[in-house]
Amino acid sequence: MEKLYFITGNKGKFKEAKIMLRPLNIKLIQTDIGYPEIQASDLKEIVLFSINFCNERLKSPFFLEDSGLFIDELNSFPGPYSRYIQDTIGNDGILKLLLNVNNRSAYFKSIVGLYKNGPHIFEGISRGIISNEILGHGGFGYDPIFIPEKSPKSFGEMTTIEKNKFSHRGRALEKLVTYLESGVE
Amino acid sequence: MEKLYFITGNKGKFKEAKIMLRPLNIKLIQTDIGYPEIQASDLKEIVLFSINFCNERLKSPFFLEDSGLFIDELNSFPGPYSRYIQDTIGNDGILKLLLNVNNRSAYFKSIVGLYKNGPHIFEGISRGIISNEILGHGGFGYDPIFIPEKSPKSFGEMTTIEKNKFSHRGRALEKLVTYLESGVE
Repeated sequence: MEKLYFITGNKGKFKEAKIMLRPLNIKLIQTDIGYPEIQASDLKEIVLFSINFCNERLKSPFFLEDSGLFIDELNSFPGPYSRYIQDTIGNDGILKLLLNVNNRSAYFKSIVGLYKNGPHIFEGISRGIISNEILGHGGFGYDPIFIPEKSPKSFGEMTTIEKNKFSHRGRALEKLVTYLESGVE
Repeated sequence: MEKLYFITGNKGKFKEAKIMLRPLNIKLIQTDIGYPEIQASDLKEIVLFSINFCNERLKSPFFLEDSGLFIDELNSFPGPYSRYIQDTIGNDGILKLLLNVNNRSAYFKSIVGLYKNGPHIFEGISRGIISNEILGHGGFGYDPIFIPEKSPKSFGEMTTIEKNKFSHRGRALEKLVTYLESGVE
């Protein structure tokens, strides 16, 4: 069986990917080798730099993923630095920044970068709104404050399988699966 | 006269450096070649990566600088991503996050990375507090909301010469000047 590495230290992301890649005849392996991410406002630029870096070290096909939450009223904050900002001010900080703000539109973006006979980029977007309070304890990061379009629930209130249907990462991983099945990007 | 490049697109920083380096018999030149900065919570790691990158492109001695504001109550936010966060939520966002927060302690850190016969790192720190409102229009970035210790004024209310006496970057540049004069780090 063909092996494919997912370079991530995030168990939640690996769990999501494992479910999405089930239809493929591939052995998905989690590996947590560190790699540099550059500072850039464009996630694609960050992922391309990282996969080219990893390709010089890892000689098997692999992918990695970067994602961010982009809030309209906050000029795309927290954007590419979503993880650091989650670790410092957290969801309470986001809710405080949006106190008395009417426009709560936001989107999550996921970029999956695959290296297999060259670099390949797959993008997934999930639009929605920031809730007024913490909703649910599922998922990770900003999940409990993000309600995707056409859903009554936040990501934090969904199971992993439900979330994959709506989520940015689910959509990017779906494109990865299609590509690995058919070779069409 | 010996030439030294300061790689920056920030006119405010160049102005500060030009004043600090006056005692030296050196021609300071601003150059705005782009370079990658990695994502890391440690500014030294960011600067070391960048100066090694630039050294492969620029064959003359140069330095660059990275700085950040670290707010105690916000777990070091905005930290290494101070510029992006300034460009998105700005000083109003910081004040909103600190609304009704008593502990307003913060520090600015500056790392100057010189490449001259190898890499050299100089650190400067300025401790102080975040003000309750915008104070002054001088400087740039977070200057109007930061009041350094032993000063009645914010950085935004100071002239460049005054600010250099108190500032993190002034202190890091002072170490750079001492090194360039004496060769002692």
